[in-house]
Amino acid sequence: MTATQRISQTLDAALCGAASAGCPPRLAGAVRQAVFPGGARIRPHLCLAVALAHGDDDPALSNAAAAALELLHCASLVHDDLPCFDDAATRRGQPTIHRRYGERVAVLTGDALIVLAFETLAQAALLHPLRLPALLLTLTRGVGMPVGITAGQAWECEDHVPLREYHRLKTGALFAAATMAGAQSAGADPAPWRLLGERLGEAYQLADDIRDVAAAPDWLGKPVGRDALLGRPSVVREFGAAGAVRQFQQMVEEAVDAVPRCNGAPHLRELVRSESERLVPTAMRLDLARAA
Amino acid sequence: MTATQRISQTLDAALCGAASAGCPPRLAGAVRQAVFPGGARIRPHLCLAVALAHGDDDPALSNAAAAALELLHCASLVHDDLPCFDDAATRRGQPTIHRRYGERVAVLTGDALIVLAFETLAQAALLHPLRLPALLLTLTRGVGMPVGITAGQAWECEDHVPLREYHRLKTGALFAAATMAGAQSAGADPAPWRLLGERLGEAYQLADDIRDVAAAPDWLGKPVGRDALLGRPSVVREFGAAGAVRQFQQMVEEAVDAVPRCNGAPHLRELVRSESERLVPTAMRLDLARAA
Repeated sequence: MTATQRISQTLDAALCGAASAGCPPRLAGAVRQAVFPGGARIRPHLCLAVALAHGDDDPALSNAAAAALELLHCASLVHDDLPCFDDAATRRGQPTIHRRYGERVAVLTGDALIVLAFETLAQAALLHPLRLPALLLTLTRGVGMPVGITAGQAWECEDHVPLREYHRLKTGALFAAATMAGAQSAGADPAPWRLLGERLGEAYQLADDIRDVAAAPDWLGKPVGRDALLGRPSVVREFGAAGAVRQFQQMVEEAVDAVPRCNGAPHLRELVRSESERLVPTAMRLDLARAA
Repeated sequence: MTATQRISQTLDAALCGAASAGCPPRLAGAVRQAVFPGGARIRPHLCLAVALAHGDDDPALSNAAAAALELLHCASLVHDDLPCFDDAATRRGQPTIHRRYGERVAVLTGDALIVLAFETLAQAALLHPLRLPALLLTLTRGVGMPVGITAGQAWECEDHVPLREYHRLKTGALFAAATMAGAQSAGADPAPWRLLGERLGEAYQLADDIRDVAAAPDWLGKPVGRDALLGRPSVVREFGAAGAVRQFQQMVEEAVDAVPRCNGAPHLRELVRSESERLVPTAMRLDLARAA
């Protein structure tokens, strides 16, 4: 089975359990829409790639960790789209959850997805509990406070925003949780994997800033220029498009260099490079450099 | 150490870790306000009482389970107060989180509290992981979907609301998780404890409906008549105040009868009775019966 299939099937099984008999129909529909069809599922892919690099001897657990990461990511998107944050009208080419189901269901959808992430993990660990506490800690720290994505998002509500810290938390924290959880679900030490996740997460956030000013609306799936409109902290506004592209390329190189020595290293380096091309295609980089 | 001290200290330690260096100050302040000063902390008290009835051989774990229940409860209150739900101006005599810190911080506070609940549990289970998976499942099912408090809340977003199911989920689910988690944290079978939690939770929800029409504003700490104003499902509207009081008394009796045979049974029955008196004092019951 491919990694894509493993991720998709585990997410589907989690949703089927959560949205089973007795669940309010609108919440069930909203939760499904928040997860399917998904985006690139980069966090779960990263998690599984690291687990495989360490032998992946408990695939039920690594599948659950991968799915949990995606559910937590989807939860953050649903809440991020709310009127009080981005007030986004579309996501992945569809009306956002609050536009289709109302704001109350959207708040509850995010809550339910966070809970479902940890439930999925608990379910998979019933037979092999020993790896659960540390794995659960990695995920909760990646999304919580003081240094998870929730804290990252909360920096937007402060008068003074430390830009690199903001990026490190808002995106890097869950990427770091992804690489570390991959190692932990295979019984390996997570510490050597943190840097890869952090660098990749920062590259991802830089790419988001770059695409916010550069991309065509249909390519990104959400209205462009929105972050600028909202006055969000942005590397592009601070360093210009060309400066942001330079930082992005450097971050990708640092991510490649951060892949620890292991059997799966070449595959992981390839994953980092192909992701970076998907995020900010070379053509776009050249366009932006010319425009600068 | 008393149960009250155990709960308070565990919550304080969890918040200190979460709101430590690097945390955005407004989020840190909001999370603390959502938890301190608290209400009656009935869910954690219930959890510890059941753990003690089974010997409480891992107090770090039962403390963590108790604190997690309270953090999840506080999260639901913060989101419940949001403008799109109750739009409450005050909670426990203070401005609500969204009034003091803004709506964005309030959404993130709820999210962070949910995550912190599971992080607290993970931290306590690091040394004794065997009980964690089932305990974590109990908590996630109590707050998630299809039958946790999030699903209960989502019934408010449907056209047709099954009233008893709504009450069972919105309040009963987390009470049932409290009694069951108490048993599990002490290594005991949780199944015999479910009914007590469910009945007590239903009594609690009935009391909330009754107090919404009967109580003086300063006694309840939130504006009264608000649920009626919001058109929320209410037993009082359906069966009248006297009918609701009768149902409440019956539910309390069923809760008392549901206490399983164990060493701590007398203490638990006493806890149920004193809680019921605190929730709907006899004087109020008589007033309502007279007014009917």
